[in-house]
Amino acid sequence: MDFDIDSYMKIRKAWVDEALTNIIRVKDQPRPLFEAMSYSLMAGGKRIRPVLMMASYEIFKDNSQEILPFACAMEMIHTYSLIHDDLPAMDNDDLRRGKPTCHKVYGEAIAILAGDGLLTEAFNLLSDPTLGINWPLPTQLSVIHEIANAAGIKGMVGGQAMDILSEHKDVDVETVKFIHTHKTGAMIRASVRVGALLADSDNNALRLLTQYGESIGMAFQIVDDILDVEGDTSLLGKKAGTDNQLEKATYPHVVGIEESKREAQKLIESAQDSLITFEERAEPLRQVADLILKRNT
Amino acid sequence: MDFDIDSYMKIRKAWVDEALTNIIRVKDQPRPLFEAMSYSLMAGGKRIRPVLMMASYEIFKDNSQEILPFACAMEMIHTYSLIHDDLPAMDNDDLRRGKPTCHKVYGEAIAILAGDGLLTEAFNLLSDPTLGINWPLPTQLSVIHEIANAAGIKGMVGGQAMDILSEHKDVDVETVKFIHTHKTGAMIRASVRVGALLADSDNNALRLLTQYGESIGMAFQIVDDILDVEGDTSLLGKKAGTDNQLEKATYPHVVGIEESKREAQKLIESAQDSLITFEERAEPLRQVADLILKRNT
Repeated sequence: MDFDIDSYMKIRKAWVDEALTNIIRVKDQPRPLFEAMSYSLMAGGKRIRPVLMMASYEIFKDNSQEILPFACAMEMIHTYSLIHDDLPAMDNDDLRRGKPTCHKVYGEAIAILAGDGLLTEAFNLLSDPTLGINWPLPTQLSVIHEIANAAGIKGMVGGQAMDILSEHKDVDVETVKFIHTHKTGAMIRASVRVGALLADSDNNALRLLTQYGESIGMAFQIVDDILDVEGDTSLLGKKAGTDNQLEKATYPHVVGIEESKREAQKLIESAQDSLITFEERAEPLRQVADLILKRNT
Repeated sequence: MDFDIDSYMKIRKAWVDEALTNIIRVKDQPRPLFEAMSYSLMAGGKRIRPVLMMASYEIFKDNSQEILPFACAMEMIHTYSLIHDDLPAMDNDDLRRGKPTCHKVYGEAIAILAGDGLLTEAFNLLSDPTLGINWPLPTQLSVIHEIANAAGIKGMVGGQAMDILSEHKDVDVETVKFIHTHKTGAMIRASVRVGALLADSDNNALRLLTQYGESIGMAFQIVDDILDVEGDTSLLGKKAGTDNQLEKATYPHVVGIEESKREAQKLIESAQDSLITFEERAEPLRQVADLILKRNT
């Protein structure tokens, strides 16, 4: 098999980057707000969530460029969450993807508003009536609901709150699992599911892809925790070791680094199992799962 | 006419309060996040935006309790904007509606997340598939789009950013108008419009109600500016005089207090003119417009 995951991801990242540039135009007023949103959106993200959405869609359909508005909305919500997480009152990070964080460049007030703006514009984009040309309205509406659920208090926001509330505390593995499934897992799971929903997949396929999404979401965050312990600041583009400093509730912290690695490995194997029935059409999803395990940034 | 606006508003405020209590349940995890959202939602707001939405709906339909989910979503977005506006990095307010602001009680991190949570849950509520029982999907979708537009970078968030960026600066009346139409005006306009959209009003009625919404939205913010100069901190439930302290771009600041009062009066008269054709069914909207002009809190 000569499938090249690097060029596969590079092509899709370029699509997403171009589409995002057309959504947030820095020439609009008030200029610093639009600049701040664009700065964080274009700071060199790997576009994992959009790639997952498109790869999931491609199991059923050929042209995943069709779903770029949905993929962009997901990336906008992800970017807003990074901007708010980095704020001094939250994780107080100065570096993100090797660059100064949004509030370091534009100040805290504009960073908060840039986050609020990206979140709101994601829903503006998702509810665009012209999308109705390509998708039945019930599908469009269920995608909005799926994403709002994943991003909200029963998903990402709830996980981030639990994360903050668990700092400097003795937490158990259940709390760490709550944080990981909510803070990171929910949006990764939703990215995979939205791809399937937009392709009008059957219930069994949706169930298998949901399992895949849940497994790689958890693995992704465990690897993130491991990288914070073992990773290299210059490769990561953010400071390693900050979890320990804030006494964050991490997987290595509660079960140790070796057990964390075994768990991540097991989750990726389980994710691969969920893809068997899709045969060669799931090759991109397979390779993304492997990348998640092997990444060093 | 023996229409009593006080009891009219009181009844609708009670409906909204009860519905909101059922949407955000403080027993969910992580508890402090849900408590913070509930604290700010239940801090004694007048529910002007939900009342406007219901009063607008009642021009065409009898039972405005039907639209409570939409009215609550609007109030959740309004509340999120207050929580974020009050943050130290923004207006740095300690008091809101006579009570300590959200970050004073729950800390900055949870206040930021409570705001993020309320905004996201509003879209979760608006995209609930069970609403489709009462409304055609195109209506539900256009309401989501209307609200996302009003709340976002071309509306409320854009206005708040311009407001922050104009502090301590010499601004002209055009900039003040930009701030007012975006920061406050857009959500008030949308509240009135959504009531009409949900009632499936004809285009001419929607146009007139849009005019009404734009006029009272601008008047509302001018009166707010005037109250900050002339109001009483104990009545306002927030500190008077803070605009001046931050050298905010306000109407009295650029055109003087007397001209501001004349302008507010003129806007309310213009709003009343837009309602003539609706005869007695617009009585609640008429009285709300008068209240906006005469309020002292």
